[in-house]
Amino acid sequence: MMNADLGSPRELTGLQQRRALYQPDLPPCLQGTRVRVELGDSTTSVDPKCADIVAQAFPHTFGQKLVHFLEPNTMVSDAQVLEEHPPIRVGVLFSGRQSPGGHNVIWGTYDALKVQNPHNVLLGFVGGTEGLFAKKTLEITDDVLLSYKNQGGFDLLGRTVDQIRTTEQVNAAMSTCCDLSLDGLIIIGGVTSNSDAAQLAETFATHNCKTKLWSHYSQTSSDPYLAIRNKFSESTQILQVIGVPVTLSGDLKNQFVETTVGFDTVCKVNSQLISNICLDAVSAGKYYYFVRLMGGKASHVAFECALQSHPNMVILGEEVALSKLTLMEITNKICEGVEARAAQGKYHGVLLIPEGLIESIPEMYALIQEINNLHSNNVPEDEIPSQLSPWAAALFKFLPPFIRRELVLHQESDNSAQLSQIDTEQLLAHLVEAQMNKRTKEGNYYKGRKFSSVCHFFGSQARGSLPSNFDCNYAYVLGHICVQIVATGLNGYMATVTNLKDSINKWRCAAVPLTAMMSVRRHLRGPGAVPIGRPVIHPSPIDLKAESYGVLREKASSFLLDDFYRTPGGIQFEGSGADTKPITLTIEGQDYLGDIEILQDYLEKVRIILKPGCSREILKAAISSMASVNDVLKVMSAPLNAELPLYHFN
Amino acid sequence: MMNADLGSPRELTGLQQRRALYQPDLPPCLQGTRVRVELGDSTTSVDPKCADIVAQAFPHTFGQKLVHFLEPNTMVSDAQVLEEHPPIRVGVLFSGRQSPGGHNVIWGTYDALKVQNPHNVLLGFVGGTEGLFAKKTLEITDDVLLSYKNQGGFDLLGRTVDQIRTTEQVNAAMSTCCDLSLDGLIIIGGVTSNSDAAQLAETFATHNCKTKLWSHYSQTSSDPYLAIRNKFSESTQILQVIGVPVTLSGDLKNQFVETTVGFDTVCKVNSQLISNICLDAVSAGKYYYFVRLMGGKASHVAFECALQSHPNMVILGEEVALSKLTLMEITNKICEGVEARAAQGKYHGVLLIPEGLIESIPEMYALIQEINNLHSNNVPEDEIPSQLSPWAAALFKFLPPFIRRELVLHQESDNSAQLSQIDTEQLLAHLVEAQMNKRTKEGNYYKGRKFSSVCHFFGSQARGSLPSNFDCNYAYVLGHICVQIVATGLNGYMATVTNLKDSINKWRCAAVPLTAMMSVRRHLRGPGAVPIGRPVIHPSPIDLKAESYGVLREKASSFLLDDFYRTPGGIQFEGSGADTKPITLTIEGQDYLGDIEILQDYLEKVRIILKPGCSREILKAAISSMASVNDVLKVMSAPLNAELPLYHFN
Repeated sequence: MMNADLGSPRELTGLQQRRALYQPDLPPCLQGTRVRVELGDSTTSVDPKCADIVAQAFPHTFGQKLVHFLEPNTMVSDAQVLEEHPPIRVGVLFSGRQSPGGHNVIWGTYDALKVQNPHNVLLGFVGGTEGLFAKKTLEITDDVLLSYKNQGGFDLLGRTVDQIRTTEQVNAAMSTCCDLSLDGLIIIGGVTSNSDAAQLAETFATHNCKTKLWSHYSQTSSDPYLAIRNKFSESTQILQVIGVPVTLSGDLKNQFVETTVGFDTVCKVNSQLISNICLDAVSAGKYYYFVRLMGGKASHVAFECALQSHPNMVILGEEVALSKLTLMEITNKICEGVEARAAQGKYHGVLLIPEGLIESIPEMYALIQEINNLHSNNVPEDEIPSQLSPWAAALFKFLPPFIRRELVLHQESDNSAQLSQIDTEQLLAHLVEAQMNKRTKEGNYYKGRKFSSVCHFFGSQARGSLPSNFDCNYAYVLGHICVQIVATGLNGYMATVTNLKDSINKWRCAAVPLTAMMSVRRHLRGPGAVPIGRPVIHPSPIDLKAESYGVLREKASSFLLDDFYRTPGGIQFEGSGADTKPITLTIEGQDYLGDIEILQDYLEKVRIILKPGCSREILKAAISSMASVNDVLKVMSAPLNAELPLYHFN
Repeated sequence: MMNADLGSPRELTGLQQRRALYQPDLPPCLQGTRVRVELGDSTTSVDPKCADIVAQAFPHTFGQKLVHFLEPNTMVSDAQVLEEHPPIRVGVLFSGRQSPGGHNVIWGTYDALKVQNPHNVLLGFVGGTEGLFAKKTLEITDDVLLSYKNQGGFDLLGRTVDQIRTTEQVNAAMSTCCDLSLDGLIIIGGVTSNSDAAQLAETFATHNCKTKLWSHYSQTSSDPYLAIRNKFSESTQILQVIGVPVTLSGDLKNQFVETTVGFDTVCKVNSQLISNICLDAVSAGKYYYFVRLMGGKASHVAFECALQSHPNMVILGEEVALSKLTLMEITNKICEGVEARAAQGKYHGVLLIPEGLIESIPEMYALIQEINNLHSNNVPEDEIPSQLSPWAAALFKFLPPFIRRELVLHQESDNSAQLSQIDTEQLLAHLVEAQMNKRTKEGNYYKGRKFSSVCHFFGSQARGSLPSNFDCNYAYVLGHICVQIVATGLNGYMATVTNLKDSINKWRCAAVPLTAMMSVRRHLRGPGAVPIGRPVIHPSPIDLKAESYGVLREKASSFLLDDFYRTPGGIQFEGSGADTKPITLTIEGQDYLGDIEILQDYLEKVRIILKPGCSREILKAAISSMASVNDVLKVMSAPLNAELPLYHFN
């Protein structure tokens, strides 16, 4: 079933050749042969209310400690330098949609493995999860890597169904790893694949899958590594599963993961195309462009692209969901924008639409849920319309035929509508055009030219791009971290880097338990009786409280009216613009691990001042301050409850 | 009606700022303040059989001489150095779709005008042809140009209907030029706009529209320039119209015009996206991508992109037209390709489709012609299907509904179907899928996976790109040449550069009469009685005898089966790859003007040897050789009559 050509050497052309020579930098902690491993606190789940459920589902891998990788020369207690490296065997696979930079994770892993011990072995699974189940491997060597360094696509190993979930799949994965005597398995992918990785890690722990390394040394009782391993983890002898955050959609984002590999490149390529369309639109002055962007349920790609290219409008799914805007309200909002522009003599415009928008519209969400339920009950596609509830049937009938057809299409494995196959941009263009014609006829609001639209969908034309310097570096560093995780014996962890907005020599490398990123959907929505579901890593929506969203809000009216288009141009690999990063990443003052360090420092200082024997006044003052801190944190943790329309006129 | 913001200063971002600082080079002949102007032979029409018709339609501007611009220091007889420059006033407008580099024509014109005489004035018409008719101008200054140098789009001046054809339009243009006391009018555009430019030039000559400059000096009889002018042209006192070849489609191509401004950039951006899709396709291994490319009736863009990105298949309209392949034959050809790939375990692929393909398919052409005729007779859209001939009606009924709808849509001004609005890629995907399903069912040929397709159309997302270095340079040089043409007093000429494949210091600059590029459609096609039409500049098809086509033919089987994908990457502006040119341009050993020079040298040598008084033997030998040359040229001028399938298997 798999393509015979995957991983074969190929001829590189001019720019590809020059890219193949690019050598990503490493942060100081990964530059030498020795790494200092430091234990952090035990972790909980992102959503504290879910912690119990997650703990129950992941008895072996929940609550593991945060692990930091540091330079060996800094002196901190509790840290241990990893130096001796018995030979290990590691497997790696792509599980998830292609994302630029994925190849560099493999390259980074390979380089780090070989630095540790030339006898280390890295096996790539050809054809993603199918290759894993079928034990189809390609040993990664210098020769194999030669034509894939800093290159786009996932064609070194390919990918297939991207799922390790059913009992058969999990068992097949387990037997492959055991048969191949792997010490670790690296899964490169997004939210779904990393959730699968967590599940597989838990299963390995439950079945007590031992590594060959461990069996060998436990027999001879001379594992030079065991002492170190036991110090850090109870699961050191377990075959380890490690996740790597690689997805173009940027929705695998949380306090530990600032962005994902591929997001930067895809946003840059999309922004290049959007700004090209903006210039085209303003030059001819007669079309409205409705541009839909790939990026999954969350709107991160559309958001970043809006900041990079300054289109006239962008409709974020998160805004729509929060304000509960209906399809007609969104349509009218766009029409108001068109009218405001017409009043200034402008009959063109560019509008960005995230592919996840359709599911953020309340009534569309309800309709899609109903259709999903009917699908789950194996109702054939052509009978679905007749079995909808009267309300949903009315909405369904209102929609244009091409959208109806797309809505009842075959569903994705995660049982949600195939977002990339619903032409939301055409739906909105259709509705806006009808509404503008009506308004023109009535002549009350709009007396301008006939409204004309052109629709675009930007998907795979960005996804296979040569990765940007940032993605090349980030992925390569993550590959190195994976090897440190295997060496430390951690199971069910994700390789992470924080403080990415800073230069590479200030990046912080860590391993974070996958369970710390998991949560459970708490609310039932839609008329069907959908179960609450098991804990998974959910796609993170855009944080509407974040600084970067504030920047967009502030400029929205200017974007709408002033044709304040920005042309970032294509990705440059040489010259002064070659190392730019996503705007959202640079605006937000992230670095969660750095902040944890600052907090630890303060707590330590407080503890020293408040040692038993301190005066009653000091203790009183501390209690008062602590109570206040406690109250503030409680208030701040309350849910957001604002209303956010798309843009305002003065 | 026009956008108030056109030509306003705007904020440039990182890459745009750096691009604004880029200074294009000039060939040696344009570097100084003095240019040597040399007269070539009188020109004929591209198609000798049309010469009479063109001559009749353009009595004043047909048969004008080729004019070369050379360095002043080379000593050649008959050349005249232009040195003195009385102040002149020139108008410029965009007429035609946006094409990257257009702004640099204006910049080049401006710089050359100011070097000649600081009192020269350049007026841009805001809103293209509508601005010309409405006398809406913007004086081009250093400040105005500041944020448009080397930038994409046409937003410095904008464009509108791109037509100067009706009597009202021509009269409006004429009165604008006279009222504004222009000496020359520069029209930036493709085949249609340059045809309009030729017509306008002829009209100006017919009406003897005098320039103010001429009136002034003819009264005072002291025009220091008149002697030079009279030497070169009979129409020196006429208000001059000059065309500039700027169109992304690359179809304004002939012996004088090697490529058009914008073609390089658009092909590079498209190739970047196509190669991204190729990498995506091979990574997932499950989809066939049908990618349609903007580029008008001819397939130059698809051809160049195929050479740059090596997709699995490309179907050139010219091949289809020559082999008279029907829609079903094309479908079967693609299916054979899909089967051949499946036999190698490959279930993905990328297929390029030029937007003009649909008109190259014989039965589709006939159907489109019938629909066009019905349109011309003002038959309403919904009655068209019922008024088709039985044969056309049967084909129409066979087509899927979305294509039927698109075919009867509103027509373009040149009375051809709106190519960019016919989803040919979806039509072919639809037909191939049906055929593959049938073959799978029959099980004779194909036993592989279900065939799945994804469709793309690449249009304006490439068109608004930052222009490549090559397009920046080419456009800037053409702008300079326009000024030399005005100074020389030539009416109805196009600014041209040949030997573009070589470095800029070897480029040859010339002025070519627009009538030399004109011809008349000789054959009636389709059932309707369409008139033969007036002479225009026709879009040039791909030359299937050219070397570059041979390269594609030779590699076609390898492209189909070997996934020999090439990743050119995005346009780079710095580093070693920044100055690459279109592959078709570099493969073909063009330089028509250089070859004319070589021919002239030979003819001169022959003439010297054969001076009256030479021996009888030498004269006999010469006659024999000349007869042979004559025969060879006759045979070579015969039409091509080969059959060219898309690709061959051994």
